[in-house]
Amino acid sequence: MTEIKIFSPATVANVACGFDVLGFCLDSQGDEMIIRKTKEKGIKITHIEGFDLPYETEKNVAGVSALAMYKNAKPDCGFEIEIYKRIKPGSGIGSSAASAVGSVFGMNELLGKPYNKTQLTCFAMKGEALASKSEHADNLAPAIFGGFTLVKSTLPLDIIQIPTPQDLYATIIHPQIEIKTSDAREILPKNISLKDAISQWANVGSLVHALHTSDYKLIHRSLQDIIIEPYRKQLIPFFDDVKFAAIKAGALGCAISGSGPSIFTLSKGKEIAQNIKDVMSLVYSKTNIDFDIHISKINTRGVKILS
Amino acid sequence: MTEIKIFSPATVANVACGFDVLGFCLDSQGDEMIIRKTKEKGIKITHIEGFDLPYETEKNVAGVSALAMYKNAKPDCGFEIEIYKRIKPGSGIGSSAASAVGSVFGMNELLGKPYNKTQLTCFAMKGEALASKSEHADNLAPAIFGGFTLVKSTLPLDIIQIPTPQDLYATIIHPQIEIKTSDAREILPKNISLKDAISQWANVGSLVHALHTSDYKLIHRSLQDIIIEPYRKQLIPFFDDVKFAAIKAGALGCAISGSGPSIFTLSKGKEIAQNIKDVMSLVYSKTNIDFDIHISKINTRGVKILS
Repeated sequence: MTEIKIFSPATVANVACGFDVLGFCLDSQGDEMIIRKTKEKGIKITHIEGFDLPYETEKNVAGVSALAMYKNAKPDCGFEIEIYKRIKPGSGIGSSAASAVGSVFGMNELLGKPYNKTQLTCFAMKGEALASKSEHADNLAPAIFGGFTLVKSTLPLDIIQIPTPQDLYATIIHPQIEIKTSDAREILPKNISLKDAISQWANVGSLVHALHTSDYKLIHRSLQDIIIEPYRKQLIPFFDDVKFAAIKAGALGCAISGSGPSIFTLSKGKEIAQNIKDVMSLVYSKTNIDFDIHISKINTRGVKILS
Repeated sequence: MTEIKIFSPATVANVACGFDVLGFCLDSQGDEMIIRKTKEKGIKITHIEGFDLPYETEKNVAGVSALAMYKNAKPDCGFEIEIYKRIKPGSGIGSSAASAVGSVFGMNELLGKPYNKTQLTCFAMKGEALASKSEHADNLAPAIFGGFTLVKSTLPLDIIQIPTPQDLYATIIHPQIEIKTSDAREILPKNISLKDAISQWANVGSLVHALHTSDYKLIHRSLQDIIIEPYRKQLIPFFDDVKFAAIKAGALGCAISGSGPSIFTLSKGKEIAQNIKDVMSLVYSKTNIDFDIHISKINTRGVKILS
């Protein structure tokens, strides 16, 4: 095998109470990438479609993660990368993570899978760091492992796969506004009350339990973020209206995806997910903000080979 | 049935990362109580053995929880309570919780079980509030439900039973010093860094996952408390020495039980629990502090009928 076409999925990080640690993988959106072995050594990005991204390997997220693996693997060949970018950068559903994951996953396949999923995440973190200025894995882990993941720690990297209830669907709306990562960070408090922290970790514990037991009612009671959301929702116009409508339509929870501006909901079954799509769309269609909206089953497989 | 003898177990609350929410139930220590139906209405405490506790119903934890249920149930009878107190008050392993649980569990049995476990916890919280000045359920829940419990919230009361891995043993040492509850509270920070809170809730999430999957290595990696322990361990002489020795002897984790002074460890299998007992004992036997030490399988049943 000298060439592989892969699908690298979008992901939701900062799943409500699980800020910075819990993420899940989407099915509906993702980048396609072709990775090709070459005789010439090194990593080259030879094609980019969809969005305007740098071709220089060191300046491209997919290139940087590929280089991190390449330097470690020291193979007798090189690689070409083609990127068919479908996930809009800056939308809050792991666009850079998908790029970072795609190249290392594809190369690993072509090299005969010398690396495990945690090691792939380590390489991808180098690419992700180019986009977000810090090494984190909360979008990478669900893209690589699939389903729900908990990043227990990044140093050392410790990723846990949490089971995914079978009927769980996500509805994700992307209001097309720009949120600067720096703003999303600066708005966060450095310190929080112990009381709030206790509520938050009670919810993280119960959410993990609810995912293990497919207890949808408990998922509903656990999908709360009393710490980050009050700050970051200020950056997303009509967040409260969207959330109110989604919960009323049966969403198990509604929260900011990543650092926004996308907003995700989870629901039991596709029908409710569709209702949520309708009511969320209605909120933004009354404003002058353009939006995309998608329904997705939780993708339990993660990044995959297309051909 | 007009009389029942019950065993109301000791419990460990504040299980490392799970401060204020995670607890588990012990087998080795517990109070015995006899609850007896009487023609005369009302709640009377007729016998107390073991420790010097008030006989006045309104001043006794078991009496107050019994009264709370009694007022709700409005039965055609009254109850006598005999308390054979084995758990030393103030030791940090749920002494008052055991009393509060015993009376309501026994009365519920004699009344034909009109209340479920969560309702029993609600009544018991009234008794616990007498001892600790606030309504909390983190020792009550494991005593009533058995095994590991997560108190997701107290208002409304929401208790989750987490599975218990089969080979899990606790070793608990009680250095006989007095820690005032007020001191244990006042020493806690009101605010904590968001960064530390994130680490803590990652550990809560992974601990719940580890208990579900009987992943002892992950239990070990998760049993960390970076927020409360640094403060409260100052109130327990030789805590660091005990912890170091216990971990070296194979403990999966070692932390303060409740608000201390007892220190608990968890381990896989009885043999390691015995080794831990030996090394912990050695630490305190070199000091002038008296201590009790016990090994206990995790009690998955909770409070139970003896006869």
